[in-house]
Amino acid sequence: MAFEAQVRIFPAKRLERFITSVLAALGVPEQDAAICAARMTEADLRGVDTHGVFRLSQYCKRIRSGGINLRPRLHPVRENAVTALVDGDNGMGHVVVTYATQLAIRKASETGLAWIGTFNGNHAGAGAVYSTMPLAHDMIGMYMTVANGNHMPPWGGVEPILGTNPISVAIPAGNEPPIALDIATTVVAQGKVKLAAQKGESMPVGWMIDRKGQPLTDPKRAAEGFLLPIGTYKGYGLNVIIGMLAGVLNGAAFGRNVVDFNKDFVTRNNSGHMILAMRVDNFQSIDAFKQEMDRVIREIRESERMEGVERIWLPGEMEYLKIRERLVNGIPVAPAVVDELKQLAGGLNLSDRLD
Amino acid sequence: MAFEAQVRIFPAKRLERFITSVLAALGVPEQDAAICAARMTEADLRGVDTHGVFRLSQYCKRIRSGGINLRPRLHPVRENAVTALVDGDNGMGHVVVTYATQLAIRKASETGLAWIGTFNGNHAGAGAVYSTMPLAHDMIGMYMTVANGNHMPPWGGVEPILGTNPISVAIPAGNEPPIALDIATTVVAQGKVKLAAQKGESMPVGWMIDRKGQPLTDPKRAAEGFLLPIGTYKGYGLNVIIGMLAGVLNGAAFGRNVVDFNKDFVTRNNSGHMILAMRVDNFQSIDAFKQEMDRVIREIRESERMEGVERIWLPGEMEYLKIRERLVNGIPVAPAVVDELKQLAGGLNLSDRLD
Repeated sequence: MAFEAQVRIFPAKRLERFITSVLAALGVPEQDAAICAARMTEADLRGVDTHGVFRLSQYCKRIRSGGINLRPRLHPVRENAVTALVDGDNGMGHVVVTYATQLAIRKASETGLAWIGTFNGNHAGAGAVYSTMPLAHDMIGMYMTVANGNHMPPWGGVEPILGTNPISVAIPAGNEPPIALDIATTVVAQGKVKLAAQKGESMPVGWMIDRKGQPLTDPKRAAEGFLLPIGTYKGYGLNVIIGMLAGVLNGAAFGRNVVDFNKDFVTRNNSGHMILAMRVDNFQSIDAFKQEMDRVIREIRESERMEGVERIWLPGEMEYLKIRERLVNGIPVAPAVVDELKQLAGGLNLSDRLD
Repeated sequence: MAFEAQVRIFPAKRLERFITSVLAALGVPEQDAAICAARMTEADLRGVDTHGVFRLSQYCKRIRSGGINLRPRLHPVRENAVTALVDGDNGMGHVVVTYATQLAIRKASETGLAWIGTFNGNHAGAGAVYSTMPLAHDMIGMYMTVANGNHMPPWGGVEPILGTNPISVAIPAGNEPPIALDIATTVVAQGKVKLAAQKGESMPVGWMIDRKGQPLTDPKRAAEGFLLPIGTYKGYGLNVIIGMLAGVLNGAAFGRNVVDFNKDFVTRNNSGHMILAMRVDNFQSIDAFKQEMDRVIREIRESERMEGVERIWLPGEMEYLKIRERLVNGIPVAPAVVDELKQLAGGLNLSDRLD
């Protein structure tokens, strides 16, 4: 019997409190649980629904399987005035990368520029949540990470030993929304392929290829093929670079030693992240910069549009408007996710079951 | 009458001396002429034939039109221990970016990390020539620039107010060739479109679109359409980010105030560049890092190949092998370029006319 289950809408603060209580009930220290909840809720507010509360069950499964160190001792193992390599001690990824980002901001406040690498971390959710943290300090943020699973072969290969390795860059603006790019280096994420399969739709040429390099458009045959990198060999190159800067440089996993966090809930991920912060006033007054950013943003937005195109968007602008909208109207959560969350709450004997 | 003109092959050192003598004859100080010649020859050695001696005539035309300051006073207008904003004083781009890169290396030697921005510069040739300079100091290099001409609209637009804005990243390795990515953020460069038109071939879907967003495959109709960014909106976003980090942040041109250096040889370009250098030993011993890089590089190269694919390449590996090959066998120069160079030499009354 097919019926359209209802999407539930929750105020952001309520969802954040719920996530905190779930994680705390599983033994995550209250302060760390709150950090995870804040980062996940922010992903949902941004409209990055695949990287917010949607992931909570999976994180909980890892915690219950003993795959996460709930009381990590985060500390820099190498450090100078402008860089640090942080051992995440297998803690929750959100806690590790929040620590690293705050350290980057602190160092950049003092020196103008900082680059923090982390190893021994875990999946940390949406990249833009971290790259945008320096904005409040009038800094540019740049974040890269090695994805927690491999779905793409090297260019010309058929062995999926690379992930979607994303990069996120945020740049302050004045009255305009700040710029916040957050992209995987594959044309689409695995999730879009699954969605096409569910809907019985075929995929456009350019999403996937089969083992012979031919376009694969039937999403039901996805297991026979691979995701394509953006710009073919260019995206492959960018993907490898990100893997080396966020992974190899930090002594974190990259390539075959990446653990697929969707399949293995126990093995240490050794997930690698990097975050860079750069003060704008190294180069010019923040006011002059913001004014010029606004001008450039408007120039792009107001340039002539293609017939039928209603608006030209800047990177991060949709997400910025989404945050404002969802802060007012709440965060819609898909029925399947609501069911999962209720089960979680029930199993933990939480008073809040999102009823 | 169509006939196949002969490609001429020159030893790298000879080409480099020739370029130096041409620029010196036009009034570029000997030392600066040598810097330009070294950077251009290195682009040719790398096989980036569109960014080496191929550009000499165009640079000379700009010099003769008074569009370049031959005796620029390069200096940081803002500076601290880890960053500097350099005024290129409208000097030759190769001189400005070489200065900036050396400054980045010097600062990173002392502090571990440096980010140098430049404004008031000009076209500086191939990005990898700069991003790879820190490699000799066991540093990672990252370079971005705003392209000197606009051929791409924002995503959803039809006004070409964006260039091919490239990024180049270089990472040291041990016995393996160092990694050196150097990519434009458009799927192809304008040159490939021109080549297809010359050959009477049609272009693959994905290179260009027309004003209605439909695939444009006839290269003779190129003027009616636009280059596409890699990964559609993702490459557009990356393109904008690069323009802001290498342009707006430095007070350099981006968007409509970019001067098309193929059409206008007089107006100050105010070209912007950025270069970042990061010491590997901030995070681990250089030996351990190089060993792990070699392992990862081999893992990728030796992974299973697609049927018919002879080799999996790492970013910059082809160029590395090309350098070694061309250092031995010389640099091939297309007949039309040889003719231009001979005319240049004749007009300047140089003794060396490449005969």
